Amino acid sequence: MAEDNDDPHWMRVALAEAQSAMAEDEVPVGAVLVIDGREVARGHNRTISRCDPSAHAEVLTLRSAAEAAENHRLGGTLYVTLEPCLMCMGALVQARVERLVFATRDPKAGAAVSLYRIAEDDRLNHRFRVDEGPLAEEAAALLRSFFESRRGR
Amino acid sequence: MAEDNDDPHWMRVALAEAQSAMAEDEVPVGAVLVIDGREVARGHNRTISRCDPSAHAEVLTLRSAAEAAENHRLGGTLYVTLEPCLMCMGALVQARVERLVFATRDPKAGAAVSLYRIAEDDRLNHRFRVDEGPLAEEAAALLRSFFESRRGR
Repeated sequence: MAEDNDDPHWMRVALAEAQSAMAEDEVPVGAVLVIDGREVARGHNRTISRCDPSAHAEVLTLRSAAEAAENHRLGGTLYVTLEPCLMCMGALVQARVERLVFATRDPKAGAAVSLYRIAEDDRLNHRFRVDEGPLAEEAAALLRSFFESRRGR
Repeated sequence: MAEDNDDPHWMRVALAEAQSAMAEDEVPVGAVLVIDGREVARGHNRTISRCDPSAHAEVLTLRSAAEAAENHRLGGTLYVTLEPCLMCMGALVQARVERLVFATRDPKAGAAVSLYRIAEDDRLNHRFRVDEGPLAEEAAALLRSFFESRRGR
């Protein structure tokens, strides 16, 4: 499928966002929302600089996208470099995102496949497809490098 | 406990916020964050007017509180008129809120006691106390009134 062939491309966009977060001394996670093959918004983790507990890459991207689309129900595919946490999976439900693609798992907090499988919960009023893997090694290496550099301080 | 005796007072503040949401034609949910017996921030649901899928009362309150406290880790007690959804329970985890008090259950989306019990999950890096019930009838009546008025349109 064309959509799937584009996955590495869009994950590279998300990874560039994660690198921007790294440069700002934030946990390096980046995201981009794509609707009908076009980028609507991108963002990266800014919890420290924005002083905002909700400022994960996914939430910031969905907020920017909703503002651009003038609709808080978005659809589309969200690409993100790290498996989303509960807050972000809940935000994907609220925004009615149709597909999630993440690069690498978060075994401690991930709510897409690791601790929970929120997108498959048929008690919720929205379910969506989840794929994982594009650029997994690059995304994981960036996170490792961030946490190793902090431990060295 | 003094803290518990104050619960109806603070829930009344949250309910006033829910009434503001109602006046703005938003689903009537309100919240207030209290730290050491003092209000840090209050807010109400604004998903439509802000065009923001994350603009639930809880998230807006935590965002305002983090800005005021200049810290994205907040602690404190969050009072909210409706049981929080997954996104909001996740945001409470991110903000390290120490206690949640909600008025009435949300059997379709509630993630504090109804569909999930997120605050008790010892795999997550933060757990917190959950209490329910203050002004439950008033909060539920406001929500019923909102949805009945919309069905009548």
